[in-house]
Amino acid sequence: MNLERTPLLTDLYELTMLQTYYEHGMTEEAVFELFMRESPQRGFFVAAGLQQGLDWLEQMRFKPQELEWMRETGLFSDTFVDCMADFRFTGRVLALDEGSVFFAEEPLVQIVAPLPEAQFIESRLMNILHYQTLIASKAARCRLAAGDTPVIDFGMRRAHGGEAGTWAARACYMAGFAATATCLGSARYGIPPTGTMAHAFVLAHDSEIEAFERFARSHPDNVVLLIDTYDVRRGAERVVEVAGRLADEGIPVHGVRIDSGDLAANARMTREILDQGGLADTRIIVSGGLDEYRIESLLSGDVPIDGVGVGSNVDTSADVPFLDSAYKLHYFRDKPRGKHSKGKTDLPGRKQVFRQFDSAGAMAGDTLGLTSESLRGAPLLKEVMAAGRRTGDAGATDLEQARDRCARQLSLLPPDVCALRKPAQYPVRLSEGLKRLRTELAARH
Amino acid sequence: MNLERTPLLTDLYELTMLQTYYEHGMTEEAVFELFMRESPQRGFFVAAGLQQGLDWLEQMRFKPQELEWMRETGLFSDTFVDCMADFRFTGRVLALDEGSVFFAEEPLVQIVAPLPEAQFIESRLMNILHYQTLIASKAARCRLAAGDTPVIDFGMRRAHGGEAGTWAARACYMAGFAATATCLGSARYGIPPTGTMAHAFVLAHDSEIEAFERFARSHPDNVVLLIDTYDVRRGAERVVEVAGRLADEGIPVHGVRIDSGDLAANARMTREILDQGGLADTRIIVSGGLDEYRIESLLSGDVPIDGVGVGSNVDTSADVPFLDSAYKLHYFRDKPRGKHSKGKTDLPGRKQVFRQFDSAGAMAGDTLGLTSESLRGAPLLKEVMAAGRRTGDAGATDLEQARDRCARQLSLLPPDVCALRKPAQYPVRLSEGLKRLRTELAARH
Repeated sequence: MNLERTPLLTDLYELTMLQTYYEHGMTEEAVFELFMRESPQRGFFVAAGLQQGLDWLEQMRFKPQELEWMRETGLFSDTFVDCMADFRFTGRVLALDEGSVFFAEEPLVQIVAPLPEAQFIESRLMNILHYQTLIASKAARCRLAAGDTPVIDFGMRRAHGGEAGTWAARACYMAGFAATATCLGSARYGIPPTGTMAHAFVLAHDSEIEAFERFARSHPDNVVLLIDTYDVRRGAERVVEVAGRLADEGIPVHGVRIDSGDLAANARMTREILDQGGLADTRIIVSGGLDEYRIESLLSGDVPIDGVGVGSNVDTSADVPFLDSAYKLHYFRDKPRGKHSKGKTDLPGRKQVFRQFDSAGAMAGDTLGLTSESLRGAPLLKEVMAAGRRTGDAGATDLEQARDRCARQLSLLPPDVCALRKPAQYPVRLSEGLKRLRTELAARH
Repeated sequence: MNLERTPLLTDLYELTMLQTYYEHGMTEEAVFELFMRESPQRGFFVAAGLQQGLDWLEQMRFKPQELEWMRETGLFSDTFVDCMADFRFTGRVLALDEGSVFFAEEPLVQIVAPLPEAQFIESRLMNILHYQTLIASKAARCRLAAGDTPVIDFGMRRAHGGEAGTWAARACYMAGFAATATCLGSARYGIPPTGTMAHAFVLAHDSEIEAFERFARSHPDNVVLLIDTYDVRRGAERVVEVAGRLADEGIPVHGVRIDSGDLAANARMTREILDQGGLADTRIIVSGGLDEYRIESLLSGDVPIDGVGVGSNVDTSADVPFLDSAYKLHYFRDKPRGKHSKGKTDLPGRKQVFRQFDSAGAMAGDTLGLTSESLRGAPLLKEVMAAGRRTGDAGATDLEQARDRCARQLSLLPPDVCALRKPAQYPVRLSEGLKRLRTELAARH
């Protein structure tokens, strides 16, 4: 079973429910919406993962092995298992463009499909979109904190599995990172690859000098040396020593990396040593436990840092390791629907997001309304799939385009919404139609 | 490129370093060790993921597509790219048995292989072992908090990608969970599958009663009804109503699930309604934002709960979303090696973990020593792979065996080490040989 295509990457209850839906002919069109509930530590979210979601919707099939597993569980009727052999997603998908900034309660994706199909895709579609959106949202904060200093992604090793590592590279690049260390992220998505050396490389040589020289001659166009294996000061001094010899061979030392200790103090000391050694053009890259908060405090101190590598904190979104994502039935059999147990009333009905801009072009507020309403602002949810196939270019949006879109939208956000700590709430109004519908539905139960 | 087998699920620097190693004939045997540094919120770790690590080591190959990507980057010599076509892992692996309890600084895996091979596998091997170990360690805490109450894994949708969701099912089961909702976890690893219904199922019907009845008749052997879509009290009352009719058809209501609100108060109220309705055997399962801390506080209050479903908090290990894992060169060319920059001296040399037990059979302390030393206690690192192939049964350890092992070892741990909050530190001593070696190495630099 191919991990990336199998329909069994789902929760059992999706199948359990489907059997009942089919038994009772509940196959009319349903509308589900995927959205995030509020996350106090995030002023905004960045939509990401749509391409992988659409790939899965197009390709997912129940093959003999998967049907066999269903049979073996003893939980399903033969009729149901047999009918799943032909199961396809034949529905329509509306979605925010990847790289779009969005907010709590706004649908990131809207699925319009026969109830069993729309229901079944819940678990994996959320698995795909939730993670990339989580990481793009975290990475955008790092990007904002870093300003013009390039940020690169080193996080695969402690990302949660290989799919996460690969998608993190993509989501980080979309949010404005300069490059990734993850080869598969580069090979699949065309992200610039980057990398230097590990401490083991230095340790495997008899001396730091030998390690530096060998690496430089082996990679003359890309010499970035890790200087903290033993002692940062001596490491930097050895870079100066080695650089002299390498210069005779026409090999420049592009940069050094510092991965431990007091990064600010180490960067200042290193800058001084490099400058005195005639290596004013050699860049200083720092890494080690960094996130948006530490990037901000490092860079606000006017520390001589030319690049920042982030890893585990970003690829696991460590301060907020999951978002309160939801995928809810909002319309079925000509009726708006919504969960409304005590204190937590869902927004029912089929919705659209309308975005308003002020006269200077900055984002001024969104209105969450019903598809049937005609409201002021640019509608953000667009059709990307019809009858189970991608439509036009919309679904094939390029990663570079999504990256440009994200950069542009971040620049249009009110600064207090972008704040790393206690971000202000961006104004998202509910339309009159939506408010009325919610009240009606709550009254009905 | 197959996500689960590709060697490109790695960091670029592994390849960069390899080119230099090959250019300089640095292909002698090296010893790397994978271990965790201290994590104050965890009293112990549970070793997990070895099977997937060994699978990858056996199967990983550079195929034409992967070599093509290397060429296209322009970062590598043709000689090097050509030689990677034959790249295989041919080394030896020693490891803790899956399901073993272990502690900071103790090698979870020891790799003995030609330097380039041992170096190259770093990123993905850590990616595989770190995540499952992270989750098994978190899940074991849930298991301890739940006592005899079954815990089940619902977390795939917000796990970080599909590989994480699937591996989380495995790691949770190893740590003692009763079942998983993730079908692929069940299909691949034989874990009992479980599941009920979503709120959407109830919303898609015209009434809660109709939803309950249809579900029960469709799945007569496995009737667990979700009762909080509208109002828990009315949901429970409707279960009693429906159960009467179903009883005539010989269909029992096995359980109800409550997924929101004050779970303790809701469970108590529901128990009362069910008991009064003659449904004393109908179990109550709760879910929604649970982790070991909330499980402990719920169950310590003598709340009538018969099963606990956990999701995002466990599958992302939300309180500790990553461990401080490390993979370090400790021996090469007849010399012990170790990083020892200021304040952070690695433990050099090729090591073994020796475990002591007291007269009652409980775990009494570990000694971390050198392979060359003969020390008291049971050696925990065992050979599981030689010449790149699994050896004997050791590598093929069954998930059920690992689960039994974990249960047994958890029962032998000192209770204060198992504490959910501020766990005591389990005694891990360094052998005299190891201490001497560390001092010598630090003095040398």
